[in-house]
Order: sequence, then structure tokens, then C-alpha cells
Amino acid sequence: MQFELTREYLDEIRDWIAENQSNFINDTIIHLHPADIAEILDELNTEEAKFVYAHLDHDLQGDVLMELEDDVRQKFVETFNSDQLALQLENLDSDDAVDILGEMSIDKQLEVISKMDSENASELVDLLNYDENTAGGLMQTEFIRAKLEWPINRCVIELRRQAEEVDKVHTIYVVDNDDVLVGTLSLKSLLVANSKAIVRDVYENKNMAYVFTNEDSEEVARVMDKYDLVSVPVLNLQKKLVGRITIDDIVDVIREEADKDFQMASGISENVEHDAGILKMSRARLPWLMIGLLGGVLGSQVIGNFEMQIGAIPSLAFFIPLVAAMGGNVGVQSSAIVVQSIANGTSQFSSILSRVRREALLGLLNGLICGTFIFGITWLLQDIKLGISVSIALFIVIFFAAIFGTLIPLILHKYKIDPAVATGPFITTLNDVVGLFIYFGVGMMVFGL
Amino acid sequence: MQFELTREYLDEIRDWIAENQSNFINDTIIHLHPADIAEILDELNTEEAKFVYAHLDHDLQGDVLMELEDDVRQKFVETFNSDQLALQLENLDSDDAVDILGEMSIDKQLEVISKMDSENASELVDLLNYDENTAGGLMQTEFIRAKLEWPINRCVIELRRQAEEVDKVHTIYVVDNDDVLVGTLSLKSLLVANSKAIVRDVYENKNMAYVFTNEDSEEVARVMDKYDLVSVPVLNLQKKLVGRITIDDIVDVIREEADKDFQMASGISENVEHDAGILKMSRARLPWLMIGLLGGVLGSQVIGNFEMQIGAIPSLAFFIPLVAAMGGNVGVQSSAIVVQSIANGTSQFSSILSRVRREALLGLLNGLICGTFIFGITWLLQDIKLGISVSIALFIVIFFAAIFGTLIPLILHKYKIDPAVATGPFITTLNDVVGLFIYFGVGMMVFGL
Repeated sequence: MQFELTREYLDEIRDWIAENQSNFINDTIIHLHPADIAEILDELNTEEAKFVYAHLDHDLQGDVLMELEDDVRQKFVETFNSDQLALQLENLDSDDAVDILGEMSIDKQLEVISKMDSENASELVDLLNYDENTAGGLMQTEFIRAKLEWPINRCVIELRRQAEEVDKVHTIYVVDNDDVLVGTLSLKSLLVANSKAIVRDVYENKNMAYVFTNEDSEEVARVMDKYDLVSVPVLNLQKKLVGRITIDDIVDVIREEADKDFQMASGISENVEHDAGILKMSRARLPWLMIGLLGGVLGSQVIGNFEMQIGAIPSLAFFIPLVAAMGGNVGVQSSAIVVQSIANGTSQFSSILSRVRREALLGLLNGLICGTFIFGITWLLQDIKLGISVSIALFIVIFFAAIFGTLIPLILHKYKIDPAVATGPFITTLNDVVGLFIYFGVGMMVFGL
Repeated sequence: MQFELTREYLDEIRDWIAENQSNFINDTIIHLHPADIAEILDELNTEEAKFVYAHLDHDLQGDVLMELEDDVRQKFVETFNSDQLALQLENLDSDDAVDILGEMSIDKQLEVISKMDSENASELVDLLNYDENTAGGLMQTEFIRAKLEWPINRCVIELRRQAEEVDKVHTIYVVDNDDVLVGTLSLKSLLVANSKAIVRDVYENKNMAYVFTNEDSEEVARVMDKYDLVSVPVLNLQKKLVGRITIDDIVDVIREEADKDFQMASGISENVEHDAGILKMSRARLPWLMIGLLGGVLGSQVIGNFEMQIGAIPSLAFFIPLVAAMGGNVGVQSSAIVVQSIANGTSQFSSILSRVRREALLGLLNGLICGTFIFGITWLLQDIKLGISVSIALFIVIFFAAIFGTLIPLILHKYKIDPAVATGPFITTLNDVVGLFIYFGVGMMVFGL
């Protein structure tokens, strides 16, 4: 791509705005892609951004608005009055408009909707009812439909008529007289069809992919991914065609999903916006910290049982964090792989058994390597008895941690609990406690305590 | 979607195959979507799957082959001789064919290529030169191109001619006489254009997005995501059009990227296939385990400094794992958020400062909550002095861990190191060591040792 936002260009823009000059907007800005313009506005302060924005035409305003970062857009929207907002929303695709509307208070929603023309408004009011994590919440009502009995020519005419409203046309949806989806017509087949044909002759009704309004957005992503679709029709429960979802919205869903898994594996239990309040952020993190605390208290009880031994040989305490941490590390590694294959839907029963076997083998190997390594170091730094204790304990801990790390997500998954919660703090904590038992058990034997 | 693979249907299929009946294939299987057929074959054993596969026609075979799970496909491909392989590859899109070819040994590649017709072969040979993580490695050479001076009618005729070869047409690429890309023509504009117009009149040359063959696949994903594209043209360094990349391949790149980050945060340093050898898997995990070990050894040295104190008050040792683990947990939580916003490209300098401030505040709050909680428990279980030591230390550790967890990924990013490597073991290990110092320092003061 050509466009790259440089600090120099940004400074130039700031200077122009400071001098209240607007020529640069018509000279350069409006020739950029809306996504590039949004990138510039993201970097400006709200006042500067509004100056540029006010000089764009309505269509471009709508496109730019949707490309802004969420928090920048929100600040922006707050500075509009309801007349301006109504106008802005009418310029947007319905799925984008309803996203913005959904972020407002109910009073503001009512006010803005009352200012819109009634057809646009009623569409948005319908869309607002859907949960934002369902197909209904993702769909837009702009799409092109054709009837079975239409001649191809009429399709082309309709396409011309409707195409003004519909931004990106990938597929024409074919419906019967009750608006029930019966098939699809690709633009390619429309272009290559004999002009005397009717839709019924050339439409495709085999392997028609669709989703229902109440289906989860992750399921929509799965369907579009599996069937390599760039758009998917959305049906209500009467199988009537009510909307479509395009792949760009699904790419966002996939990214958010990945982010959520990553956060969950890192011990953050709710998906919190970057700019959420401190209390909300704290609440998202405390559950895992509490589990960690309880694990730590449990660990203290385990160690408490060996108070006498520690009093006799304090150096035993030196390697407590090492053994605990290694159990956690190995467990997280093993569980990450399992969680991922579950998330990607690749886990038949046969592969589960072979996975546990492989992880156990891997645990033995890595345990042996790490154990040998630590034996040498501990011998060198302390004494051979401690070396023997630490290395044997570490070997056993790594082996068990690998097996726990593999089994726990599998078990959680079997009981329909999202296994992503199993990585991170949970496995770490469990392995801490088990590891301490093993460590002191081995230590007592070696030292004959 | 309608299709759902049930155990009963799978058992039925197995029975039919066992009885050497093939009617069911023409009756049911061939009416399914290739992705659904692949889902069935994934579950069958190789012999059964080959039985079904052999009864499909060549086109369907190609489609199904590409939808199989990687490891199933590899087993499958291994059972073909080079004549069969050559035939299969000719049925595939060039990007898919080259993926399969790339998985073979160089001898097998030579053999298969010698069996293909020379035009197909030379295309694949060219594509094989590209690194698979670049635009060149992802692109296919099937696309539709038009010249500037062509009348629209000719475009439609060309489209008819070329459309047989090109599976999904999203956009027609417009080139000049030197094959240099000059713009695009959407099917929609082709449909609504006056039939007497020429391409030059209706093509779009503003904001043309493209990538170069040597660009990284992540950059391709970024461009397609930013500009909401369903396909992107690929240019060589002379700006000649040489291929295109479709969104379905980029969705795979995005998923793989997310998987890689997840693995890296879990302490797995190389992206290893699920079915890789044990030695390779071990090598991917050992680097982090070694860092953990060294951290543990360092920790043991820290505790070693307080040997006398532990000898005097062994109960100080009880809470070593708690303090160490909590530092790690908090650090991982903070760093995960930062790593994510860096990966999503949302990190201006101003937001960095505010982020560190927010995380510090959050650390204070969560530290206060956790500290109060542990004070109560420790007082109850042990005594008040230990309660005071543990809770004060925990408070300080959580506060610092939050700050380290935020700063370290930011610093790594500044020095062009992938910050995803910073979460997990690295932060955990650092916080372990620092936490131990704080803990014993506080303990000494409280107990007056």
C-alpha cells in the first residue's frame, strides 16, 4: 500500500488547522481511502478532528465514522446533537448505524430515532432488538434480492436500482413469493447468463449456506470460515430472508474471539474495553487473583506440615519457588496446546488419547533435561543431597504437570466449561500445590528426615 | 446450516464401505458441500476415506482435498502415485496446489511436476519460489484481468471465457499494456455500466489497495482488514499484476497469527504442528523452561541470603510460593492487555502513559484487596506478625508486578522484539525474584530480624 501516516504530515495538518485553513482537505484528504482518513483523525485531538470531519461530504463522513477507533468515535459522537446524529446514521449501513445507536443512552436513542425518516428508523428499531453477539446483531438489511420468476434482465435492472444503497454486492439472494430464501445467484453467473434466461434457470440452490438471526456470532464465523463465504444470508425462524452478514464483520468477530481467549488464558475473566473504569477492570481480574491466593494459602499449609524439616535444613526452602514455578510453566505449555486444538475444533477421541501419551512422553523428556541441568547447578551451589532432592522432585513435577495440563482442559471441555479458563492461573495454582508435596516428600526421603 | 455430522450417519457410511457398496456416495455424499464431505473423510480411516474419494469426480476431488485437515490430507497425498498427484494438482487453484507440492520432498516434487502439462507446471514452479509467509506464497495466479481500452462487452466475453478457470470472481483487475495494475472494476459496475462504454470510462483507480509479492502475510492481513477487502491484487516489484489473494486465505493467516501469540504467551517458542516429533516439540518448549529454571536458581540465591531468618522463623517460608505466584499472575494479566493492544496496532504514545498510570492504579486497588484478604487469613492461621509481613509484601509485589507487566512489553516493542514473548514465563520469572526480595525485606523489618 502507498499510504503511510508520517509524523511530518500530521504536523503539517495540525498547522493548517491551527491557521484555520481548509484547502488541504480538498487537496489531499478527500483523495484518501476512508480508512486512511480515519487513521489521521484517530491521531488528532477531538477539536482538530471535527474541523477536518466537518469539511467532508456526507457519504465520506459516514465511511470515515465507522473506521475510527471505538473510543475516538464515541467521543466524536458525543459532540453531535441529535439532528446531526440522525443525519449521520442515515448515511451508514444499517449494521453500523445500529452499533452506534446501541452505544447511546435510551433517552438519546429515542431522540435520535424521532429525527430520522420513518423507514430508516423502523429498520434500526428492529435491529436494536437483537443481541449484539448474534447473527441478528451483526447483520445489515441492505442486500440484493431477486425472485425466482424474474428474467435475468430484470435482475440487472433491479441491481442497478438497488445497487445505489447496497455498498458491496457479492451475491444476489433468490427468494420465493413468501420471501423465503431458496438459493443464490452470483454476479458471475448473472454476467455469463443468457439474457433471455429467468432466475430459476441459472440460480444455485445446492449447498446453500445460511444462518438464523438467533445464532451465536461464533457460529456465524465457523460457518463462513468452513464454507469460505464472503457473505452469508440471515433468516428468521420462518426461513424468511431478513439480512446478510459480510466477511469484514466476521473478521472482527474472529479477532475479538482470539483476544478473549488470550485474555482468559492470562487470567482476565471478562472482556473489558481498554478504556473501561478501574473498578470494572479490577472486577475482571480479581477472580483469578483470588484463586491464586487460595492456592497460595493451601501451599502455605503444605509447607507448614514440613516446618520442622525446614527448621532443620533451611536450604530446602531455597528451591520452593523453582519447583512451584516450573510446575506452573510446564502445565501452561501443555494446556495451551490442548485449549487451542479444542478451540479449532480438532479433537476426536482417538487423538485425545494420543495427545495425552505424547504430552506425557514430552514431560518425561523435558523433565529429564531440566532435572539433569538443575542437579548440576544445585550440587555446585549447595550440596549433592539438595541436588538430588531438587532434581528428582523437578523431574516428577514436570511429568505430572504435563499430564495435568493436558487432562484438565479436556475434562472441562467434556463438562461444557470453556477450557480457555483452564490455562493460566488455574493450572499454575494446582501445580504449585502438588509440586510442593512432591518436593518436600522427596526431600524428606533424601535427607532421611 | 443444515448439515451436521452425526455418529449414526458415520456408522452407516462405515457399514456401507465395509460391504463395498458405493451407491450411497452418488445418493447422498456428492450432494453435500465439499467442506462437509471433507468433515466426513476426516473422521474415517485412510482406507475408508480413499474408497469414498475414489468415487467422486475430479473437480469435487480437488475441492474436498483442500478442505481436509492438514494431517489427514498429508496421509492421503502419500498414498497417491505421481500420476494421480499430477492430475489432482491440475484440478486445484494454484495457491492450493503449491501448498500441497511444498509439503513433498524435492524428489517427489520433480517427479510430479514432470507429469503435469507444462503451462500448469511452470506456474507452480514460479509460485514454489516464494516464502510461504509472504504475499507471493499466498497468492493464486487465477484472476480476471481487463485492459483499459477494452469495451465493456469484451470484458463480459472475457469474463465468460476466463470464469471457467477462476473460482470466485470478486473484482476484475485493470492493467495497462505492460501488465501494470492501474485500477479495478467491480462486477457491480460492470453490470450497471452502459454497454457501449470502455473500461477506461468506468474503472476505479482511486484508493487502489495492493500488496507486493515479498510483503509479509501479516501485512497482507492488515491491509485487507483495514480496507475491508475480499480480495487483494499482488504486484511484483515492476508493479506488474502477478496474482491475487482472497479473504478466506487471510482468515487462516489471522487465526494462525492468534494461535502463535497464544502459544508464545504460554511459553512455547516455535509454532509446532500438533503432530510434530517429540524432539521438535521439546525444543520449542525448552527455552522458556530454561529461563524459568534460571529464575528459580536466582530465587534460591535470594532466599539463601535469608537462610538465618528462615532458620529462626520457619513460618516465613510458608508464604514464599504465594508471594511469588501472585506477582506472576498480576504481571501476566497486565502484560496480556498491553501485548494485545500492540498486536491490534492501538498504541500511541499518549495512550501508553495513561495505560501505565491506569495499571498502576489498578495494581494499588487489587493489591489493597488481596493484601487485606491475606492479612485476615494469615492472622487466623498463623499469627499477626506474619499476617502483617505477608500482606504488606503482597501489596507491594502486586503494585510492582502491574507496572513491570505493563512496561516490559512496551520496552520490548520499542526495541522491535515481539512483545508476545514477554508474557508468560518471562514476566512470571522476573516477578518471582523481585517478589522474594520484597517479601523477605518486609519480613525482616516486621520481625526485627
